[in-house]
Amino acid sequence: MTEADRPVDNGVNVEALIAAREALSEAPEAAQFKWRAACQWKNGTHSHSSVESFFGLGEEQRHKRTFSFDADHPEVFAAEDNGATPVEYVLVGLASCLTAGVASVAQNREIQLRSVTATLEGDMDILGILGADTDARNGFEGIKVTYDIDADASKDDIEALVAQSQKRSAVYDIITNPTNVSVEVK
Amino acid sequence: MTEADRPVDNGVNVEALIAAREALSEAPEAAQFKWRAACQWKNGTHSHSSVESFFGLGEEQRHKRTFSFDADHPEVFAAEDNGATPVEYVLVGLASCLTAGVASVAQNREIQLRSVTATLEGDMDILGILGADTDARNGFEGIKVTYDIDADASKDDIEALVAQSQKRSAVYDIITNPTNVSVEVK
Repeated sequence: MTEADRPVDNGVNVEALIAAREALSEAPEAAQFKWRAACQWKNGTHSHSSVESFFGLGEEQRHKRTFSFDADHPEVFAAEDNGATPVEYVLVGLASCLTAGVASVAQNREIQLRSVTATLEGDMDILGILGADTDARNGFEGIKVTYDIDADASKDDIEALVAQSQKRSAVYDIITNPTNVSVEVK
Repeated sequence: MTEADRPVDNGVNVEALIAAREALSEAPEAAQFKWRAACQWKNGTHSHSSVESFFGLGEEQRHKRTFSFDADHPEVFAAEDNGATPVEYVLVGLASCLTAGVASVAQNREIQLRSVTATLEGDMDILGILGADTDARNGFEGIKVTYDIDADASKDDIEALVAQSQKRSAVYDIITNPTNVSVEVK
């Protein structure tokens, strides 16, 4: 079998996703998911978060194992740097969401990927979070994502892949559009 | 020394943060930070991200060590569940940002914290990301954060702590307000 004859395999089960789309369109209540995280304060700005259960397909679900994450502020913020900074977790979420989308769309379009890397950079004026400049927002002024993709496709087709991934990305939507967050004290 | 005499210590160096606010207000170019992540596709929806360098205080900075994260989709999405789901990373970022803020504000207000836990839940209609319902957004319909805080303070003071943390939180701002994201292919 030559390379051209080999079926495209990016490790994404597109048939299952298409079947899920059909099944869930007919049973929309099963498409209602709840994603969760729990966070425990350690000391200073250091916290420990865990991700284990979620709800979907009409019932409680569980990851294969519990995923644990330390977060902290860096030493230049007079903290201990015991983990990634919270805003860096947002960049990891965006990078991984868009990258999963690139692989899924490539599989659906029968484009074989060889390598995909993304570098992300978010600009922030920290006078905002320090409360020193009311014109500076607390969050990122903007985020730049740069993809370097080696695939059996033209530059135009690769750009179209990335554009379609953005169009269907949960985290891209969360960051670029407002999401309501309610915060309560028990 | 009785408990009442003991100085409040939540492990946050508030004096250093106040000094930084004054110094950076006079040298605002040093307050321009760039936060970064890099992401490498592994297979299917599985990717590996790393967080190592950032820019701030006018120069390149480095975390004490490289923080690494696997992300994937769960088995109910016909994937291998090799890491937390991208949207769960967003919840971890929000939880850790608000929690670091609670500790910092408590220190500044001389409130001794004993324990702080947050539970987060984000609702999502996955017909959005599946492209099956144009009325369903890709991201969270909403996020609920619930704090359980044991501290030397009244319920009102604890609620005010959490409210001030929201007001100064980078990730809360990123999620509740639109942020521009540009995506390019090299």
